Amino acid sequence: MNQQEIIRKKRDGEILTSQEINAFVSGVTDETWADYQTSALLMAMFVNGLSPDEQNDLTRAMLDSGERLDFSDIDAPVADKHSTGGVGDKTSLIIAPMVAACGVAVPMISGRGLGHTGGTLDKLESIAGYNVNLTTAKFKRIIKTCGFAMAGQTAKIAPADKKLYALRDATATIESIPLIVASIMSKKLAEGLDALILDVKTGSGAFMKEFDDAKELAEALCLTGNAFGVRTEAVISDMNQPLGKYVGNSLEVYECVKILRGEIDEQMQPTLELSIELAARMLILCGVARTISDSKFQISNSLESGAALEKFRRNIELQGGDPKVCDQPESLFDVKLIKAEIKAVTSGFVSEINTSAIGECLSVIGGGRIKVEDAIDFAVGYRCEKTIGDQIRAGDALGVLFCRNENQFDSIREKLVSAYKINTEHNSNESRLIKEIIES
Amino acid sequence: MNQQEIIRKKRDGEILTSQEINAFVSGVTDETWADYQTSALLMAMFVNGLSPDEQNDLTRAMLDSGERLDFSDIDAPVADKHSTGGVGDKTSLIIAPMVAACGVAVPMISGRGLGHTGGTLDKLESIAGYNVNLTTAKFKRIIKTCGFAMAGQTAKIAPADKKLYALRDATATIESIPLIVASIMSKKLAEGLDALILDVKTGSGAFMKEFDDAKELAEALCLTGNAFGVRTEAVISDMNQPLGKYVGNSLEVYECVKILRGEIDEQMQPTLELSIELAARMLILCGVARTISDSKFQISNSLESGAALEKFRRNIELQGGDPKVCDQPESLFDVKLIKAEIKAVTSGFVSEINTSAIGECLSVIGGGRIKVEDAIDFAVGYRCEKTIGDQIRAGDALGVLFCRNENQFDSIREKLVSAYKINTEHNSNESRLIKEIIES
Repeated sequence: MNQQEIIRKKRDGEILTSQEINAFVSGVTDETWADYQTSALLMAMFVNGLSPDEQNDLTRAMLDSGERLDFSDIDAPVADKHSTGGVGDKTSLIIAPMVAACGVAVPMISGRGLGHTGGTLDKLESIAGYNVNLTTAKFKRIIKTCGFAMAGQTAKIAPADKKLYALRDATATIESIPLIVASIMSKKLAEGLDALILDVKTGSGAFMKEFDDAKELAEALCLTGNAFGVRTEAVISDMNQPLGKYVGNSLEVYECVKILRGEIDEQMQPTLELSIELAARMLILCGVARTISDSKFQISNSLESGAALEKFRRNIELQGGDPKVCDQPESLFDVKLIKAEIKAVTSGFVSEINTSAIGECLSVIGGGRIKVEDAIDFAVGYRCEKTIGDQIRAGDALGVLFCRNENQFDSIREKLVSAYKINTEHNSNESRLIKEIIES
Repeated sequence: MNQQEIIRKKRDGEILTSQEINAFVSGVTDETWADYQTSALLMAMFVNGLSPDEQNDLTRAMLDSGERLDFSDIDAPVADKHSTGGVGDKTSLIIAPMVAACGVAVPMISGRGLGHTGGTLDKLESIAGYNVNLTTAKFKRIIKTCGFAMAGQTAKIAPADKKLYALRDATATIESIPLIVASIMSKKLAEGLDALILDVKTGSGAFMKEFDDAKELAEALCLTGNAFGVRTEAVISDMNQPLGKYVGNSLEVYECVKILRGEIDEQMQPTLELSIELAARMLILCGVARTISDSKFQISNSLESGAALEKFRRNIELQGGDPKVCDQPESLFDVKLIKAEIKAVTSGFVSEINTSAIGECLSVIGGGRIKVEDAIDFAVGYRCEKTIGDQIRAGDALGVLFCRNENQFDSIREKLVSAYKINTEHNSNESRLIKEIIES
């Protein structure tokens, strides 16, 4: 069963056997498949698709390419959340401490930002000293101590995915639902979870611009998760505008700490709402709560009692970070930055926001990555002043850019202004935050 | 216009512009495209196809990736023949001297054998001293002196094709008509030809097993050749059985010399017939003959007068080979070989011959290549005793294997015997040698 035979089969639209998919993934892992053979098969998979069995076989083979975490010695249900990524999408930093405070262990393995999307690891690293590179032993020890830990993917978890993702990125084979499912689920299933909640974003700042695509992905992810014995649900949530008030690594941590401290304002409300929805569903999937109202009560209580903030503080200490951000969230602002208003040029109503353009602008001034190897300026970012449906006058601030200097401001000002579409009439299709739930 | 954008377009079935195809081929040539990106695009091209314009653009870009030969200083029409490859397909060694003897310059750039098919360069190298690695200057000098030269593709001709072909071979993207057309024609158009005759094989020993596929390829090749100003025709010829009497490098040269010497027997007849057909069409395409009967007369005369043999002798001398093969063709046999009969096990009529199996058997005992880097044993080979339609009795010799020892014989005997399908009744679908002509 050589490489060409397997490639030829999928090229011709045939169904690959488990053995053939295993041979492929093993070959990717032990490098007996050349990259050019792998990318040819990925393209054939992209164009001709995968059957449900093939998708599960691919997920299993990628999962089996590495180690699985084992939490059988932890006396608590184990759950995680995964988001498909967006702009201002910071809920992990609120959900993990809330859910941990309710007695669920959360082994959160996250990624870094690329292109217009941010990444949890980058956000965490904007906390001085915070270390996301943990050994498996230390990762588990921290979870045992404070209920959750947040780390990057080790080389030992689903190594085939690391290789495949890099090739897909270079060969325009990212946007394939079966390949996305196998990539996400091979890593998540390695976490040894009882339950998984998925936050599938849709809209102008999401990977899946169209709702129908997001729903198809959400359903495929849930199907695979449940097929592997992990109770899995998905929330399809809005990404037609940045989530909440801030975009940018330090600024997003600031927003999260403010929420954990109960010092919330109206613009932060969507961040809180989505975090509670996702966290509450995790409790139900784990059997810690029976009804959504009971679950939301427990979650809200973890906030109001300060228990979630204390979990976050303990986690920061255990991961080597400076916990003063919990007491002085303003310490996350870099006073050397300038703040520049993005002003509307016409009056009317905000009807659309090109959300990925906002993410891209921040990458241009160093707040995100254009290429994987780019360094990040944690402090720069954006404060959203107007959301879809808001009435504005010419000259009003649409948002405020936190940047290093006037040159940075000038380089992206025009793109930021034109990210906002202003209509003279108010249109009623305000974007609902939570669009649909795919239940397990 | 980056790699991913171009790959994405073809992935989604869109038409690439000339600029995009040029960027791809330039990137392959200067290695700014990674192999895994190239193979992803090749797979997308394979699955989604190329429009006629894209096919011509790809051919032109591959042609322009290297140098073109210029024969404007030669006072003769310039023509070549190209075969899609088969078993016992040895016509080049007869056609080139015949056509050269009729006043046409033949700059024949050929390839090596791989898998079940033989290659002209390997056959020529079975003549002691014969050198197929010529500089462009020497190649032209030999053509000026004796009317034809036979050499391998230099690194300077269509370098993009060399790279692309190796990747296609490794990624199961060979059997795509537009990719085949661009590969063949980019090399042939670089020869600076006035005319080109294509021998497109079909049948069990051909690349294109089905006649319809062969015809589609033949038409696409002719369309492209004529679009580039080279008068191009194709002959679709039979490859349901080995061509002529012998298969194997030295043995095929022997058959060619015997034909050039006029010492022909019945089993060599198909080789002569096809060679005359192809050569005669070359004369017409070049304007050296007006009618096919006039052309065949000139070609036959070059044989009968001994002029073609003299051209061959002169060419061997000029390319460093020992011309005694022209006077003592038996010197091509290696007396150390054993000859073993492949005997029929049942009586009846030969109804089918698995021709590629015969080619593969010879590769196994060293007469061809399984991998590109394999060395060749020029002397081993096979003499065909029975052809499709022949009546046989159990125990009759179907063919005779020329091999090194009994072990070699044992290793392939069974496969050779079962390559012949014997029916009790005579079926009338005897394979016609020349199936169709695609005229320019």
